[in-house]
Amino acid sequence: MASPTPVLKDELDIVIPTIRNLDFLEMWRPFFQPYHLIIVQDGDPSKVIKVPKGFDYELYNRNDINRILGPKASCISFKDSACRCFGYMVSKKKYIFTIDDDCFVAKDPSGNDINALEQHIKNLLTPSTPFFFNTLYDPYREGTDFVRGYPFSLREGVPTAVSHGLWLNIPDYDAPTQLVKPRERNTRFVDAVLTIPKGTLFPMCGMNLAFDRELIGPAMYFGLMGDGQPIGRYDDMWAGWCMKVICDHLGLGVKTGLPYIWHSKASNPFVNLKKEYKGIYWQEELIPFFQAATLPKECTTVQSCYKELSKQVKAKLGKVDEYFIKLSDAMLTWIEAWDELNPSAPLPNGNAK
Amino acid sequence: MASPTPVLKDELDIVIPTIRNLDFLEMWRPFFQPYHLIIVQDGDPSKVIKVPKGFDYELYNRNDINRILGPKASCISFKDSACRCFGYMVSKKKYIFTIDDDCFVAKDPSGNDINALEQHIKNLLTPSTPFFFNTLYDPYREGTDFVRGYPFSLREGVPTAVSHGLWLNIPDYDAPTQLVKPRERNTRFVDAVLTIPKGTLFPMCGMNLAFDRELIGPAMYFGLMGDGQPIGRYDDMWAGWCMKVICDHLGLGVKTGLPYIWHSKASNPFVNLKKEYKGIYWQEELIPFFQAATLPKECTTVQSCYKELSKQVKAKLGKVDEYFIKLSDAMLTWIEAWDELNPSAPLPNGNAK
Repeated sequence: MASPTPVLKDELDIVIPTIRNLDFLEMWRPFFQPYHLIIVQDGDPSKVIKVPKGFDYELYNRNDINRILGPKASCISFKDSACRCFGYMVSKKKYIFTIDDDCFVAKDPSGNDINALEQHIKNLLTPSTPFFFNTLYDPYREGTDFVRGYPFSLREGVPTAVSHGLWLNIPDYDAPTQLVKPRERNTRFVDAVLTIPKGTLFPMCGMNLAFDRELIGPAMYFGLMGDGQPIGRYDDMWAGWCMKVICDHLGLGVKTGLPYIWHSKASNPFVNLKKEYKGIYWQEELIPFFQAATLPKECTTVQSCYKELSKQVKAKLGKVDEYFIKLSDAMLTWIEAWDELNPSAPLPNGNAK
Repeated sequence: MASPTPVLKDELDIVIPTIRNLDFLEMWRPFFQPYHLIIVQDGDPSKVIKVPKGFDYELYNRNDINRILGPKASCISFKDSACRCFGYMVSKKKYIFTIDDDCFVAKDPSGNDINALEQHIKNLLTPSTPFFFNTLYDPYREGTDFVRGYPFSLREGVPTAVSHGLWLNIPDYDAPTQLVKPRERNTRFVDAVLTIPKGTLFPMCGMNLAFDRELIGPAMYFGLMGDGQPIGRYDDMWAGWCMKVICDHLGLGVKTGLPYIWHSKASNPFVNLKKEYKGIYWQEELIPFFQAATLPKECTTVQSCYKELSKQVKAKLGKVDEYFIKLSDAMLTWIEAWDELNPSAPLPNGNAK
């Protein structure tokens, strides 16, 4: 992939939620400059966000979101990086890469800068293997393959919908773990990409994430967090659980592992604890819910899967807290807004809405 | 674990199946010498196998196996490394490490010799996390933890039954892949241990494998392979699939990843193809069978699970080939022989038979 033309240059948008000037882009310039950026400005819309020169971008603040979505803007979180999913909705590209503005270029063990985007693209363009575990990890990587005992009928794999990247330096810990281990840093470079098996849930972090918008976009809703909501820091988790149930149902793959980014600073654990505390105990009911969730055969599109899931959320999680009734309604609003901005047309992969 | 006394010195046996002099032990001397070896001599029992001086071992050849098991010796394969499981049966220790005699000490990326046994012991003595995937891999390893979004109720994990290690240099490929990629070598050191999630099968290789005999021993039967059988090179796979279904049922964990050994030479792909070819197509029916297999609640011991599985093998795989009827009977014989050599007594973990 050392081609002079950046891969998927015209087929991928980089989505960045932010409340500050995007100086962090300077470090990413060699890798991101050829691509189009969608910046979702959170918080005060009157604030001017500076973007370094030479980047091709569009920027949306809260006024833009309200203007574009009208009453449906209620499904987009405010004062929480969950607002990033608005960028997924307005993109017209096949692929999305999203990254936080406190994430920098990491180095591999040889000291070379890691082109995170290029690795995500590799992950998305090669199949996944959710039905059987390959002990040498990604079998499509150069220098490796399926091992003895891997069924031949499963070696073509399935399309990859999501590529979940990791973080060196500050690990993505919850507030209690941050409090207990304030100095723990992730220094271990694990040179692997692997498919999360079918039926297995994982904690999807939105800091360094890529996906195929055509395959799974409408499931990447980051929920209701932040201002006016009883919970924060579960936006990406929520999206990950919904997305994984739908990928498992539709036979799509989810990978995790490479690429690493350098996560520069830990957020305040005391603030995080306040945001997370309801999530921490609700989660104990959410996980069994998602582990048991099944979708009917008739659900053959992401949209129909997502609507069905929102019904189940209302029916089963509504009892846990009324927040989930509101969230369930917002899930439907999200799909309506998605369909409005992405008018129905048979998609190239035949996944018509 | 840099303790002067080797860990679990009196609680672990090293099982080695072989047909030749065990010169390979010289390289392992610093790591293996404190432990007891169980050598299972395959092939001609009149051949004398030389063991380097200073090792503490017992050796069983075919005559010994026949003498000890009588008619039940029929369940132990001949002229196939599947015979190693006899060593599991005669051991009186809590843990087993088994290794092939063409496996040498590998080096980590810093050039240090890898003490494979020590890593296996670490893997076995720390819990597994089969119910939810941790994106930073083994959460019990120093310097890492459970990430944000990992349910707190699952952070204690479950007991680890099996530790599956990997191989540098010659990868464990099937004959077709060996033929297509004769020069492929595994040079990538992936610095990770992970739990194979519940409900996910994997190809378990017997080359570099450790397990808790008390937790899962009776499920580690390597089947009928080699002399007089229509199939070879599926012994460890068979054991792995049976074991995984039972671990999932009993709530036990299976890990894969570190440690690496150096696998010195590829076996002959033409010979392998002959051994494997029935396995390669039978496998397409075996995998769905094991993926769908469920065990009744009443099966609370490994033995009862294994007997139930043997019934299901006869009922469902007997149609694929009569070999599986024979194998199903051998599975029962194996359990009978196991119980004879390991008389019923409440085991320390309360897992009474």
